[in-house]
Amino acid sequence: MRQRNVKNKNEIIKNSNYFLDNPSNYKGKWQEVFKNDNPIQIEIGMGKGKFIIEKALKYPDINFIGIEKYDSILALALKKVPANIKNLKMIRLDALNIDNVFDKEIETIYLNFSDPWPKKRHEKRRLTSPNFLARYENIFKGTNHIIMKTDNSNLFSYSIKTLNNNGYYILNITFDLESLQDIDNIKTEYEEKFTKLNYPIYKIEVIKKK
Amino acid sequence: MRQRNVKNKNEIIKNSNYFLDNPSNYKGKWQEVFKNDNPIQIEIGMGKGKFIIEKALKYPDINFIGIEKYDSILALALKKVPANIKNLKMIRLDALNIDNVFDKEIETIYLNFSDPWPKKRHEKRRLTSPNFLARYENIFKGTNHIIMKTDNSNLFSYSIKTLNNNGYYILNITFDLESLQDIDNIKTEYEEKFTKLNYPIYKIEVIKKK
Repeated sequence: MRQRNVKNKNEIIKNSNYFLDNPSNYKGKWQEVFKNDNPIQIEIGMGKGKFIIEKALKYPDINFIGIEKYDSILALALKKVPANIKNLKMIRLDALNIDNVFDKEIETIYLNFSDPWPKKRHEKRRLTSPNFLARYENIFKGTNHIIMKTDNSNLFSYSIKTLNNNGYYILNITFDLESLQDIDNIKTEYEEKFTKLNYPIYKIEVIKKK
Repeated sequence: MRQRNVKNKNEIIKNSNYFLDNPSNYKGKWQEVFKNDNPIQIEIGMGKGKFIIEKALKYPDINFIGIEKYDSILALALKKVPANIKNLKMIRLDALNIDNVFDKEIETIYLNFSDPWPKKRHEKRRLTSPNFLARYENIFKGTNHIIMKTDNSNLFSYSIKTLNNNGYYILNITFDLESLQDIDNIKTEYEEKFTKLNYPIYKIEVIKKK
């Protein structure tokens, strides 16, 4: 997501109840953070947070963690969260370090409209590269479970290939999410914009049993 | 492919050197038919035959068999074949019986612009349904190898899923074959029409080691 500087971002972040600094301190202890043993789902690259906030409101018996790399964007998400959502936290993290933050604790990873990094030399930065898939291996509690949405057909075909090549089993795949009229679909900010423009949205849901 | 009646189709079929009647007679004996031990590749649903004929001309050290269910279409393909191609045969066959015709003899199956059978109740008729994938298991000589092209996104996403779920490994996948500018790509009749209309062509190449 493109960054704009956000005034007072440091104050917003510091003062939010939803923000957890130094998330690696909680590795293996996320149940204590949420004070329950409900499943934990994370969104890597939450952007302005619409998706993860609406998820948390809709599913109070699931814990959600929104992950964002950039302070400015994180601040926008934190500003937006309504008060008193008990099942939502947000952290600042480069996903390259995700295995330093979670240890067999995650039920589901959401990847929504991730940066496609179209250049071949940037392949390693794609969140579905073998590089990242390897880092996700140890964060899942049981079966690996990834749900990805994108409007980028190249990132989508790339991801289908890497997921397939790394032992994932496709539960669902669609090339046109909007036409499915899935009433449970929660749209990200980007997704709302793209569907209004009639761009097709691709979605894939995969699992890997160990 | 839609059928039009072809005059003299029976004569065309009967008189062609490329046509082999009762193909199940050759099960386990296809090397004898071609009088060599070159690899054998087949196209299921060859339509009017442009693809398989051009393949045979371009790759004389591979044997090709075009498979078609309907007499009228088969006759059109047989009419079109130039004389004296030693590495090409055409057979009339409903693919449901394919395992009665080949026994560990095939290197590659081509599925080009297969009927998408969009209705759920016709799923079993799709050439990448689990039903068909099971029939293909015993026809491959070594590693299963399937190369599929289609303009139908629903058939493509369905096929990605069934291939993945049945142990296939994706070697290549593209959502826009034309933009790849693959100079080795041989276009079918349909493909030429669709690419002129700027429809995207989807392609996937998969293997399954046993």
